[in-house]
Amino acid sequence: MIPRYSRPEMTAIWSPETKFRIWFEIEAHATTALAELGVVPKEAAAIVWEKGSKAVFDVARIDEIEREVKHDVIAFLTHLAEIVGPEARFVHQGMTSSDVLDTCFNVQLVRATDLLLADMDGLLAAIRRRAFEHKMTPTIGRSHGIHAEPVTFGLKLAQAYAEFDRCRERLVNARREIATCAISGAVGTFANIDPRVEEYIAEKLGLAVEPVSTQVIPRDRHAMYFATLGVVASSIERLATEVRHLQRSEVYEAEEFFSEGQKGSSAMPHKRNPVLTENLTGLARMVRAYAMPAMENVALWHERDISHSSVERMIGPDATVTLDFALARLTGVVDKLLVYPENMQKNLDRLGGLVHSQRVLLALTQKGVSREDAYRLVQRNAMPVWRGEGDFLSLLKADPEVNKHLSDAELEEKFDLGYHLKHVDTIFRRVFGEA
Amino acid sequence: MIPRYSRPEMTAIWSPETKFRIWFEIEAHATTALAELGVVPKEAAAIVWEKGSKAVFDVARIDEIEREVKHDVIAFLTHLAEIVGPEARFVHQGMTSSDVLDTCFNVQLVRATDLLLADMDGLLAAIRRRAFEHKMTPTIGRSHGIHAEPVTFGLKLAQAYAEFDRCRERLVNARREIATCAISGAVGTFANIDPRVEEYIAEKLGLAVEPVSTQVIPRDRHAMYFATLGVVASSIERLATEVRHLQRSEVYEAEEFFSEGQKGSSAMPHKRNPVLTENLTGLARMVRAYAMPAMENVALWHERDISHSSVERMIGPDATVTLDFALARLTGVVDKLLVYPENMQKNLDRLGGLVHSQRVLLALTQKGVSREDAYRLVQRNAMPVWRGEGDFLSLLKADPEVNKHLSDAELEEKFDLGYHLKHVDTIFRRVFGEA
Amino acid sequence: MIPRYSRPEMTAIWSPETKFRIWFEIEAHATTALAELGVVPKEAAAIVWEKGSKAVFDVARIDEIEREVKHDVIAFLTHLAEIVGPEARFVHQGMTSSDVLDTCFNVQLVRATDLLLADMDGLLAAIRRRAFEHKMTPTIGRSHGIHAEPVTFGLKLAQAYAEFDRCRERLVNARREIATCAISGAVGTFANIDPRVEEYIAEKLGLAVEPVSTQVIPRDRHAMYFATLGVVASSIERLATEVRHLQRSEVYEAEEFFSEGQKGSSAMPHKRNPVLTENLTGLARMVRAYAMPAMENVALWHERDISHSSVERMIGPDATVTLDFALARLTGVVDKLLVYPENMQKNLDRLGGLVHSQRVLLALTQKGVSREDAYRLVQRNAMPVWRGEGDFLSLLKADPEVNKHLSDAELEEKFDLGYHLKHVDTIFRRVFGEA
Amino acid sequence: MIPRYSRPEMTAIWSPETKFRIWFEIEAHATTALAELGVVPKEAAAIVWEKGSKAVFDVARIDEIEREVKHDVIAFLTHLAEIVGPEARFVHQGMTSSDVLDTCFNVQLVRATDLLLADMDGLLAAIRRRAFEHKMTPTIGRSHGIHAEPVTFGLKLAQAYAEFDRCRERLVNARREIATCAISGAVGTFANIDPRVEEYIAEKLGLAVEPVSTQVIPRDRHAMYFATLGVVASSIERLATEVRHLQRSEVYEAEEFFSEGQKGSSAMPHKRNPVLTENLTGLARMVRAYAMPAMENVALWHERDISHSSVERMIGPDATVTLDFALARLTGVVDKLLVYPENMQKNLDRLGGLVHSQRVLLALTQKGVSREDAYRLVQRNAMPVWRGEGDFLSLLKADPEVNKHLSDAELEEKFDLGYHLKHVDTIFRRVFGEA
Repeated sequence: MIPRYSRPEMTAIWSPETKFRIWFEIEAHATTALAELGVVPKEAAAIVWEKGSKAVFDVARIDEIEREVKHDVIAFLTHLAEIVGPEARFVHQGMTSSDVLDTCFNVQLVRATDLLLADMDGLLAAIRRRAFEHKMTPTIGRSHGIHAEPVTFGLKLAQAYAEFDRCRERLVNARREIATCAISGAVGTFANIDPRVEEYIAEKLGLAVEPVSTQVIPRDRHAMYFATLGVVASSIERLATEVRHLQRSEVYEAEEFFSEGQKGSSAMPHKRNPVLTENLTGLARMVRAYAMPAMENVALWHERDISHSSVERMIGPDATVTLDFALARLTGVVDKLLVYPENMQKNLDRLGGLVHSQRVLLALTQKGVSREDAYRLVQRNAMPVWRGEGDFLSLLKADPEVNKHLSDAELEEKFDLGYHLKHVDTIFRRVFGEA
Repeated sequence: MIPRYSRPEMTAIWSPETKFRIWFEIEAHATTALAELGVVPKEAAAIVWEKGSKAVFDVARIDEIEREVKHDVIAFLTHLAEIVGPEARFVHQGMTSSDVLDTCFNVQLVRATDLLLADMDGLLAAIRRRAFEHKMTPTIGRSHGIHAEPVTFGLKLAQAYAEFDRCRERLVNARREIATCAISGAVGTFANIDPRVEEYIAEKLGLAVEPVSTQVIPRDRHAMYFATLGVVASSIERLATEVRHLQRSEVYEAEEFFSEGQKGSSAMPHKRNPVLTENLTGLARMVRAYAMPAMENVALWHERDISHSSVERMIGPDATVTLDFALARLTGVVDKLLVYPENMQKNLDRLGGLVHSQRVLLALTQKGVSREDAYRLVQRNAMPVWRGEGDFLSLLKADPEVNKHLSDAELEEKFDLGYHLKHVDTIFRRVFGEA
Repeated sequence: MIPRYSRPEMTAIWSPETKFRIWFEIEAHATTALAELGVVPKEAAAIVWEKGSKAVFDVARIDEIEREVKHDVIAFLTHLAEIVGPEARFVHQGMTSSDVLDTCFNVQLVRATDLLLADMDGLLAAIRRRAFEHKMTPTIGRSHGIHAEPVTFGLKLAQAYAEFDRCRERLVNARREIATCAISGAVGTFANIDPRVEEYIAEKLGLAVEPVSTQVIPRDRHAMYFATLGVVASSIERLATEVRHLQRSEVYEAEEFFSEGQKGSSAMPHKRNPVLTENLTGLARMVRAYAMPAMENVALWHERDISHSSVERMIGPDATVTLDFALARLTGVVDKLLVYPENMQKNLDRLGGLVHSQRVLLALTQKGVSREDAYRLVQRNAMPVWRGEGDFLSLLKADPEVNKHLSDAELEEKFDLGYHLKHVDTIFRRVFGEA
Repeated sequence: MIPRYSRPEMTAIWSPETKFRIWFEIEAHATTALAELGVVPKEAAAIVWEKGSKAVFDVARIDEIEREVKHDVIAFLTHLAEIVGPEARFVHQGMTSSDVLDTCFNVQLVRATDLLLADMDGLLAAIRRRAFEHKMTPTIGRSHGIHAEPVTFGLKLAQAYAEFDRCRERLVNARREIATCAISGAVGTFANIDPRVEEYIAEKLGLAVEPVSTQVIPRDRHAMYFATLGVVASSIERLATEVRHLQRSEVYEAEEFFSEGQKGSSAMPHKRNPVLTENLTGLARMVRAYAMPAMENVALWHERDISHSSVERMIGPDATVTLDFALARLTGVVDKLLVYPENMQKNLDRLGGLVHSQRVLLALTQKGVSREDAYRLVQRNAMPVWRGEGDFLSLLKADPEVNKHLSDAELEEKFDLGYHLKHVDTIFRRVFGEA
């Protein structure tokens, strides 16, 4: 997470101020719940809320205390005692640090996911708009980077939409994975704290109760969470790669918006580079990489060790901030993408009709030619076209074995673009629910 | 995937024979659907089914053809034509290889997942049985490898149960991710094949229709699938690590079953090593590693490139076979685990009551001592115990600042084991639905 | 490792037969060394060598024994005793299984690396040949996929050569990392075996003595080894990606050799796809992935645990066999690559001279224009060219602010291709030692 | 990279101020070299050095310009022009941004590596000191977490020393990988800049000339660099894991230093946890993870794309800062480690002599018993000891089949600790060059 690739709303979730505020709320809610259970005085809970709500937690002071006690939650509680006064001794009763840390981490992840979901909605809206705009804009479909058969630019975007729609659902699942709360004490036995406190806090924070915790909330949840972010990042890479390809000088079917005053290269003033999508490609690599340590975090020793903590202090912000930034950047790219339908048409025409080879193949088999023979006939007329030795339709017409089965008119009919687009509506209906 | 870590049922899913059989079924179903739509003769479909169903596909022959045409599906179709005769020309009409390959791969993954789900059910049953067996077997809970407070061995297993229960649900989600079918032609436009063929085949194979494909089924699905397997593997590592720790010579609270005739070491006849769980730790590393190339597979170029294929030919079998083996091995470990409650009790007693330090701390705060002072008082009586300089309870009783607030009887009451186990039923009910 | 992506010589290194033969040699050398030290009878060593050298180790029989004793080395030793007779009791004296296993694994890795080095030599030779062939074949250099300035195709290959030359050196380093031998007994103390036995075997096997082992050879060595293979694979991916780009329909400057009878697509007979380099891209992902578990293997517990073993049983063959195959495949691709200089020239000309923008920029600054103003002047004449609104040179000539500083002749001189190729010799000399 | 796990000297290398200073030096050296070649006026070079050396580059101002031009090097050059005045137009002549960026990145990596090497020297010195201190402190060697045979604590540290000594050499190799300089212009052809400029700058900066660059320095170098850091991190994890194991309550042979005022747990005042080494375990996971995107960075498109840049902006600092912190923290852990020889002895004695089983086995074979029979005899006397059913030596003495071959005195002699330590000197000499 570096400022260059960060947005303020997501970054704020990971600030010390936000963290200490959530810690306070967890502790204060616990004190209220304990007061309702008669474990601590009700007045104490009231004072904790009153003084703590008004206080600004002093990050530098907390850091100073931590340098002595070498324990962050104790440092916070000590500072809270400075604010709250003697009633502070009723705070954290029967709890362990991880009750606070893990529940807070999950609150932060839930908030982060809510931002990611909003990002995703924005991205989906942008893709949808452009997809309908170019629903019937013909362009060449490519497999292996080689011209295959015609598609539309809208179909490309429909695929992206369907993919990010799946990613949205995955994020919803991932959010559920980590939306839990544990207030279960030193080894998760509730020895010194009633399970009802956990239920109370979970409800207040919009979380589910963790069925069984062992000082910590189990890290398979977080592994699944960060693995999901890695998958989402990979889908970002896919669309980014598509744009990069489309902007290549020889292809030039679409292009990232290039603003006035922008410079593509310090040396070559003619350059307009797909730098945003290249950047997204790199960011995707990073988000993906964070899945691995998150998985290694699962096998904590016995009831817990703290090896996961340093990992999460890094990937918690790093993965969510980077993904938030990437989703927003990709949304901008899609939204403002310059699309060149004429260039698409030019490319479609570039191979002199080769892209219709399958239709000729099928027509031959319909006429009774075996699949193997038909393949051979079509291929032998296609290969010279690659070598610049003629036009595909003319070669086919001139091939006696071909025109034994297919008349010139029949052959010509196979070179119709519209033929390929007849099911675009079907696909759009499947993806968008309308066409 | 190596024989040593493979089980036959899963391995069979990935055999060439199985693959060609599924290919055949996809092609034959497609021919039937095309016949119903009037595109090919109904008799042709009947002959394809009749001859193909009886045939044993000759893997060596198919390989031989592939060496010439350098295309696996074409090789298969050529061989199929040798079996079916002239009607073979109605097979694969309007389809592209990936229609067959991708749908087949998903069928294989679905079958593999069904085995994994069955494995998981077996594992869950074993854990549940042992959890109830040891529901109230006291043992020390450890954080950081250091004695913390008492738990029960059943609670450890309840945590494992809850974790694998989540993994089961993740596998169900992962299965849904990849249970799709695409029969959409060269670039997914259905140019030469009616979408109803896809619907027909999907239904026959128990799959969902892929809403939009681009020759290939999008690989974000598979990335999510293999990432999920990586998370499941990480949970296996967690339980395996627990067993390894429990079997350590100094801990020796549990032990992998050691059979008659088994030898632990070629050099040291006294050895009984947790080799199965160490093995599982390594296998988990492998399954986890496969998530990374699966994610890199997502960003195929344009409508598709074939870089994902070599990856999937390897990780398809490697990840599912290894995970299947690991789940079965772990089930055996849990099922036959030797548990030593007396050693657990011995370890519980080892630190001379230090594990009750929190209760003394809380008791002091209840008496009006500030949290900070109480912590200091308890800690100063705990540290000598680590140095072997006395017994915790006696030291506390002898500390004038402590006994100003807590009588000997009050102190003794804090050293009660039962206190820690009062909520075991609550947790079991949460996890197992009963206690 | 699957047959499709395997070559026999490398696969043979990982066969059970090879493994048992190496095990035998280690044991037999040890017996000889022990005999020379007077620990075992000289005749015993002679008999071991004599009977063992002639024997064919029966893999099925060894597997059968292992099923009972659950220990592979003991199973082998038992089988060896069946072959050698009573003198077998002098075998493995004071050794531990890992002495055999780890030394054998390193012997296998050394042999594998020798094959990889031979592969690399073949690849370097092929690249070198094609680099000199196309040393002065002009082609456009592209940054960000956008035309930048002219290079030659030979320069592209010179870069690849330099990169694989570095990879070769890395392989040499990696070989040295794992070319060690440990015969140090149960925990590496030489308690029951004289260190001179280790020295003797090391010398016989062409290995270095492991300075300190702890039953096992430390796994940081293997982590470094497999990480290095991952880097080599990444370089393969780079060159493969270059070919894939060059073969794109719109670029079409080079192409994988397409054999007679080959079929590019089951549906579209016109297709010629870069399937070999796409395949290499996928294989690179796999080899890279194996680096991660190799690194996780380093932190074995105490003197050793066996979690590394399952990983290595898989990645040992998987990584080396796949990389061997990939290097050989890439060599074939380079060797037979179809290169189209005319298409390169056509692409060079495609942007109407835009690629000379930097030279105009520099010429303007030489005439006293500030860098910022020069940039603006050149950029404003370049951008219309992207929009298809004119020819760069003409636009420049017509710009009064430009021709205030540069005459038409001066401008024309900036559009000279040869200008860019004047240092090709320098670079070739740096890379190849000659030009 | 977060402040909690950062040290100032390493962090400073990655500050914008350092970066701009290096950029300036590269540009200024280039201007000098160009002046010597007569391309630009000597006075211009002098003025650039004079004004630039005194200037403090205004990061905020550069950021402001970048927001407009969207290009970081152009923004810097514009700011430099504000400082230098009209002579600034002679700066960056014939260069491209990557000449500056890549050379600067490598300078930063070289400096970072020099810090890492100094860290490593500190770590090696600490390990060496403690190794000699405990050269003959007996302790149990453990394989699989199970007692094997005696070693010394010094031997454990000797192994760590040898491992980090290898890591040091790997860092030296990694430094050489990235210690290169490229000043070769827009696509690496030196079209607009004489290769002698590159040679001049390389010499001034203590770098080697990059033999062939393509606008960028090839990223296989950086992949190797970051992979190496990942291996070093894995070795850190190994030693950290050893300490964590030794500190376990049941083992308690060593312990991280625990300072006055430190608190191990907010809830349990008795706790002393190995939090530093657990923390190192997590940090190792992070550094290892960064190797993966670094490898994915290798396959840039054609002469370059910029996808590597976002990755490197993150992992450049993240990996080096984290590793620097981790090495320093580990050095502190080793330096101040509390070692408990009495507890080591207690653990050595714990299994009642079982650890001598191999010697009895070997003694029996020396007496003519077959290896298989000897194994069986020893194992049947060892297994009851695990079950707490007697003492190993007594059981052996009472076994008629054993004492047929070995007298009581002979058996007792096999239980001598000193026997295992006779080659400690040999190993120390191998590792440290002295004993």
